[in-house]
Amino acid sequence: MQIIRAVDWSPDGDAVRIIDQRRLPATLTERDLQTLDDVCDAIRTLAVRGAPAIGVAGAMGMVVALRPLVHEPEHAFRERLCGVAGEIRATRPTAVNLPWAIDRMLARAAASQGSPADVLDALREEATAIRDEDRAMCQRIGEHGLPLIPDGARVLTHCNAGALATAGIGTALAPIYLAAAAGRRVEVLVDETRPLLQGSRLTSWELTRAGIPATVIADNMAASLMRAGRVDLCIVGADRIARNGDVANKVGTYGVAVAARHHGIPMYVAAPTSTFDPATPNGDAIEIEQRSPDEVRRGFGTLTAAEGASVHNPAFDVTPAALITAIVSDRGVHRPPYDFAPATRESAVVHA
Amino acid sequence: MQIIRAVDWSPDGDAVRIIDQRRLPATLTERDLQTLDDVCDAIRTLAVRGAPAIGVAGAMGMVVALRPLVHEPEHAFRERLCGVAGEIRATRPTAVNLPWAIDRMLARAAASQGSPADVLDALREEATAIRDEDRAMCQRIGEHGLPLIPDGARVLTHCNAGALATAGIGTALAPIYLAAAAGRRVEVLVDETRPLLQGSRLTSWELTRAGIPATVIADNMAASLMRAGRVDLCIVGADRIARNGDVANKVGTYGVAVAARHHGIPMYVAAPTSTFDPATPNGDAIEIEQRSPDEVRRGFGTLTAAEGASVHNPAFDVTPAALITAIVSDRGVHRPPYDFAPATRESAVVHA
Repeated sequence: MQIIRAVDWSPDGDAVRIIDQRRLPATLTERDLQTLDDVCDAIRTLAVRGAPAIGVAGAMGMVVALRPLVHEPEHAFRERLCGVAGEIRATRPTAVNLPWAIDRMLARAAASQGSPADVLDALREEATAIRDEDRAMCQRIGEHGLPLIPDGARVLTHCNAGALATAGIGTALAPIYLAAAAGRRVEVLVDETRPLLQGSRLTSWELTRAGIPATVIADNMAASLMRAGRVDLCIVGADRIARNGDVANKVGTYGVAVAARHHGIPMYVAAPTSTFDPATPNGDAIEIEQRSPDEVRRGFGTLTAAEGASVHNPAFDVTPAALITAIVSDRGVHRPPYDFAPATRESAVVHA
Repeated sequence: MQIIRAVDWSPDGDAVRIIDQRRLPATLTERDLQTLDDVCDAIRTLAVRGAPAIGVAGAMGMVVALRPLVHEPEHAFRERLCGVAGEIRATRPTAVNLPWAIDRMLARAAASQGSPADVLDALREEATAIRDEDRAMCQRIGEHGLPLIPDGARVLTHCNAGALATAGIGTALAPIYLAAAAGRRVEVLVDETRPLLQGSRLTSWELTRAGIPATVIADNMAASLMRAGRVDLCIVGADRIARNGDVANKVGTYGVAVAARHHGIPMYVAAPTSTFDPATPNGDAIEIEQRSPDEVRRGFGTLTAAEGASVHNPAFDVTPAALITAIVSDRGVHRPPYDFAPATRESAVVHA
């Protein structure tokens, strides 16, 4: 099975190779980010997206940006290192994985002795470790979720929590990839996911590329497919999971969960433990980002709503734990009642 | 309150004046259909849409098309009358109101004696009657539904069952217009209604034009608004209502009904009795039209899904009667258990 690599070193190791997600699903374009500007531009313009993938790209990007400075005096190199970190960190101020990855790189640099070349080697090692840990996290989510995907399963998903959002095989899609690799027949029903269409643009693309049958639907068709008996289970990712198991994820997830419950269909969430946020007691405490009305009003370059009408465009919604059959993480399959106390977190700095 | 007229006579009575719905919401363009080609083209290209509005436009269009032939010999005039009827009827083969209106015009012509000018006068009278009956039907639905819309109501609707779909004030939107006219504060939450966006393009346009606050949302946001307590009731139209009260309507209606039930919110359907189909025992007997995959895959002129992915694109879904709080028709407010026996039909020929 051919699962794409959203972010990785270029073959010679001198650049960050990404799939340019702005050009999907029309064309597969790999780009080598060779300078600081390349890296910042790619993150800022969503050429690379998905919180884990951005973190990896940012960490690797620091190495790429600092490589030309390796013959500078140590003082100048370290000064520039701080500047580079700040510039990359500022590209997407709200993503949590990016500042986490940058801070980890800075900590490694601070702990590294020797010449700029030595520090750069240490940073390359750290960025590679961040990539590898992300891949391993995806793999473990896939393995824990694999028993949930029986042969012949028809799985509904929403948005993109796939390989394109990580350095590995994704989160929500990881169990699906492993089920297909194990020879199980799987069909994925893909909510297109208005307004930005991450489901139809990205999820359907990466699944069909891996040879997994994908059927795109408008978001409003999911419930009637459930009623027709054409959905066996739902699996989605998460942007943040409160201590009580309430899940913030792409807007529309809650409607899927309500319809799944109405039809007695399991609703699974798959996400790394770094998404668990014990400091947030429940979903009511999660602030929901409101995005530009134009994503709904003229999302395709055409005016599609009356100029005089208001638009409500939240990026996420909250699905209460009571509607979630199980949460699959890199640590295992969590069942209700959920209580994600601090000890269950991957790393205490993730949301620092 | 300014409620638009989707279809009417032009001021001099020589043409059918329509609002060109293809240009909404960007610009309000009224067009006078002055020839048979104008009429057929407008119906075929959805410049005029909505089953009741198409029926009225078709009937009026027959008058416009026959007017230049009024000095022909009676034999030639009557022959051409049949040809005109056939051409207009063929523009939208699946709509039920169009053949019903054309048949009614043909019956009137057959019953009319005298010169071509006399027959044309009779046809003009019949087309005007069809328009007036449609307007009266809308008005009665509005009056029966008015008590369901309290002051301050926040009403969610799906697709367009408004003035643009009829010759009058619409079906689902009729009670809303009358509530606003009665001085009640009403806010309408408008599902954009993928894939063709009739909600955002048409419903938000006609409501804001009438001064009624409208807020457009992506379809997948309705459930979380209900959870947030921001929806008091839902009201939608219907394409066909089975004898047991199961309702076929624009795809997505069922998901709204499921979410409304989950949150204890009333779900109303408003439709003329001509939509009742006693010959269809329940929703399982309603065939659902599948439409082009490209409406989902490249609905806005851009490729938005992987070429290799399948697309599922039903035009309608079925909401079981058990999820419908009440059905508002021109005859009154129907409550469960529903049994729309043949006697409750407006006219036995509607679905003939």
